[in-house]
Amino acid sequence: MSEGTKIRVESEALRGFCVRALRRMDVPEEDARITADVLISADMRGTSSHGVARLRRYVNGLRDGTMIAQPETEIVAETPTTVLVDAGGGLGQPVSFRAMEAAIEKAEAYGSGFATVRNSNHFGIAGYYAMMALDHDCIGLSMTNASVLVVPTFGGDAMLGTNPISVAAPAGQEWPFVLDMATSTVPRGKLEVYQRLEKPIPLGWATDETGEPTTDTGHVLKNLKERAGGGLLPLGGAGELLGGHKGYGLALLVDVLCGVLPGAAYANLVYPKDDEGNPLPSAIGHFFGAWRVDAFRPVDAFEDAMDDLQQRLKNAPKAEGQDRIYIHGEKEYEEAEENARRGVPLNPKVADDLRALGDELDVEYDLA
Amino acid sequence: MSEGTKIRVESEALRGFCVRALRRMDVPEEDARITADVLISADMRGTSSHGVARLRRYVNGLRDGTMIAQPETEIVAETPTTVLVDAGGGLGQPVSFRAMEAAIEKAEAYGSGFATVRNSNHFGIAGYYAMMALDHDCIGLSMTNASVLVVPTFGGDAMLGTNPISVAAPAGQEWPFVLDMATSTVPRGKLEVYQRLEKPIPLGWATDETGEPTTDTGHVLKNLKERAGGGLLPLGGAGELLGGHKGYGLALLVDVLCGVLPGAAYANLVYPKDDEGNPLPSAIGHFFGAWRVDAFRPVDAFEDAMDDLQQRLKNAPKAEGQDRIYIHGEKEYEEAEENARRGVPLNPKVADDLRALGDELDVEYDLA
Repeated sequence: MSEGTKIRVESEALRGFCVRALRRMDVPEEDARITADVLISADMRGTSSHGVARLRRYVNGLRDGTMIAQPETEIVAETPTTVLVDAGGGLGQPVSFRAMEAAIEKAEAYGSGFATVRNSNHFGIAGYYAMMALDHDCIGLSMTNASVLVVPTFGGDAMLGTNPISVAAPAGQEWPFVLDMATSTVPRGKLEVYQRLEKPIPLGWATDETGEPTTDTGHVLKNLKERAGGGLLPLGGAGELLGGHKGYGLALLVDVLCGVLPGAAYANLVYPKDDEGNPLPSAIGHFFGAWRVDAFRPVDAFEDAMDDLQQRLKNAPKAEGQDRIYIHGEKEYEEAEENARRGVPLNPKVADDLRALGDELDVEYDLA
Repeated sequence: MSEGTKIRVESEALRGFCVRALRRMDVPEEDARITADVLISADMRGTSSHGVARLRRYVNGLRDGTMIAQPETEIVAETPTTVLVDAGGGLGQPVSFRAMEAAIEKAEAYGSGFATVRNSNHFGIAGYYAMMALDHDCIGLSMTNASVLVVPTFGGDAMLGTNPISVAAPAGQEWPFVLDMATSTVPRGKLEVYQRLEKPIPLGWATDETGEPTTDTGHVLKNLKERAGGGLLPLGGAGELLGGHKGYGLALLVDVLCGVLPGAAYANLVYPKDDEGNPLPSAIGHFFGAWRVDAFRPVDAFEDAMDDLQQRLKNAPKAEGQDRIYIHGEKEYEEAEENARRGVPLNPKVADDLRALGDELDVEYDLA
């Protein structure tokens, strides 16, 4: 569903602006570069909800102290194949990038490696970190818990985040397989798109404060903002008839691995507020992993089989009225290729807001 | 949805019968005991579709040579944290039990451990192996690919299995968290229940040969049997509107880890037939894993937080008309407790068939 024309900006200029804005907030150069790269990667891959549109929220977090520009990160526990990092309340991207690097290093040494992070913040698109494994002929895994938006099966209030799961696996001639999915039916951003288009949402996306599925887009978003009950439905929808308990189970699994395992916040303890209602650091957590493909079989043989698997699916008979079966990641790779040629697509409102942010921070906004 | 009264049998007598039947087919004593335990565990936990009702299929497989009673298993590749086992076409349960043991041993030594299996057969309930990790204060993971029943998003024909994912994590006072889910909306067994009750299935469970969702229970089952097109829908249903591409992605993920990674069959290559249409060994694969909890944080702290997470969810506000929010595994633990007191519940038809099987094999059926 299109939201109208986007403008195109040159990616290096956009990157430079993001880095300067974060540097102005005292974020170290390398951390700023990592954060900018994760944000721009989302816009390039067509996930604009997690792209540079988020920069203002990070700047606000750094301003109000819920995000720390120069956090004291700490390795809390470590074994040959696992590490737990305390992010010190810093931006989610730099600590996640380094945690995933550590997981890959451990995989290279021992066959598999894992890193969990606590006391962190929003880390952008989960797929970014899973895809880091691809350059090392590894299968990558990335998860995070997140702000409370999703109702458990038979529940009336949101208790879990949209808790995404991403897994990336290399292929040969085909694009890598990159699954990157919220465990809810849709993320909140999808409702915001429907609201801007003044459209009702399909039944199965969200519930109202009584726990009943609803099509009232604005009502759901208002309830979510005010924590007034109801929320997004887990993958599979309301109740158990269409498997909603499975989506709820996946969201809970992510909360176990990202919240409970590293000692981060979980369930409705994430994004806490103080007694006066002021936001505190979000205290969310992440889980990263890597498996070395050649620990199991030669990389070439694996990639050949990945190609064959993908081709079998793409060449399979289609449902009537359909002409294409997709592999996960394929649309995003194609979009990123196009955007590499044509420039990063930005919603004009996002571009305007970045320009305004530049003015506020006295940081040059030099985009075409 | 109840299928009528079940009879109750004593678990040790049932176990003895299963072991004797498998022994008669030349399955080694220990392998027979493991297989019987996995089957009876399914009946105890309320998953009768994967219980002793399957015994006849295993006996048939051992008779027709698609399953090998005394397979030559082989370790094909190994690193400190990973192992790939060729099951030699044997029963799925014994090799899976030992593979999960190996994964746990590796986790105990290095923090995490993984085992993949190829050239295997139906392994019973995925949760059995994930739950093996609990006794070792580990988080357990278990997956398998399976016979072709599920249509990819926008596809007309089944190309993937119901490919289940199970994860088990220990808790303190509460039951462990045990997610054990097919990545399809429902398993085939659920359609068989509806057929016996002569009920139409809900829209969102399956498609007909045109790729359209259908409520015609018998038509779907007939199509699946004859591979005549259509099939079960992935979690999230048809198309992308309610997230069907996510369920399809999870099924594909399982095929990558269980099929491609160990060099097992995948997609529609599983359960192959020879030129004359006779079944060949299924060639499916499995993926097992374990993470040591105390690699990340003390087991007590983890278990306390697991209890708190569960209690937060259980005590959360309910949707109108609902009085309980469940944690995954809870229903099954409660059912297993009841069945431990009252005996293993069996469908009378299953009990009759076991008796007939005993007669065929000249194996004593001494159940009450």
